[in-house]
Amino acid sequence: MTASEDNRDLVARYYHSLNARDWEAFKRTLAGNVVYEIPQTRERVCGLANYVDFNATFPGDWTLEVVRLITDDVGAAGQVTFRVGGQEMTGISFFTIEDGKISHITDFWPEPYAPPERLSHWVERY
Amino acid sequence: MTASEDNRDLVARYYHSLNARDWEAFKRTLAGNVVYEIPQTRERVCGLANYVDFNATFPGDWTLEVVRLITDDVGAAGQVTFRVGGQEMTGISFFTIEDGKISHITDFWPEPYAPPERLSHWVERY
Repeated sequence: MTASEDNRDLVARYYHSLNARDWEAFKRTLAGNVVYEIPQTRERVCGLANYVDFNATFPGDWTLEVVRLITDDVGAAGQVTFRVGGQEMTGISFFTIEDGKISHITDFWPEPYAPPERLSHWVERY
Repeated sequence: MTASEDNRDLVARYYHSLNARDWEAFKRTLAGNVVYEIPQTRERVCGLANYVDFNATFPGDWTLEVVRLITDDVGAAGQVTFRVGGQEMTGISFFTIEDGKISHITDFWPEPYAPPERLSHWVERY
């Protein structure tokens, strides 16, 4: 496999084990000093055990489904649909991969907003 | 070059020409039937000329800077910092690439939000 294919497999295992709450398999995808960040809230979790705790204590009977996954030799970008309590959210993660483990995750949770006024006449709503 | 390298070059040219308002170079990166979507507002722009118009009429003396770019054989994901009028926003785009042209763009604009209550004790603010 190429590095890019290895990375695709790694991030697929990350999402699969997270959704399955298989924390042992989840840990195997992560570097010991993994850093997880949410720029929108300026929250950060540092270290493997802390990041597992963050996910394992996340409330609700949530599920996630991978919508798309792009990987190259040094990282990946994934989009997921996160469902909990009848709500559906979009999550986007950028991954840095070093020595076959995920070392950094930057997570975004874009929410709906009212469209601004547009000067272009060619914007449709769907 | 591999398909992935070609795609990296293509999306780099997309961002560079967009930032430069070089609409002729910008057009050369796009398929004739390109579709641009913003899921957060449910807005859509269809077709090359319309999508150029959408960008060319976007108000303000904006600039964009590429923060990261991940490409594979069939697509790409990019994160940019968009600056206009003293404001700074994060934009994330997923690209579908067909026959050497960008055929679909899904654009996200995540905004700051208040952090929810966390059960994990390991979440820091930065």
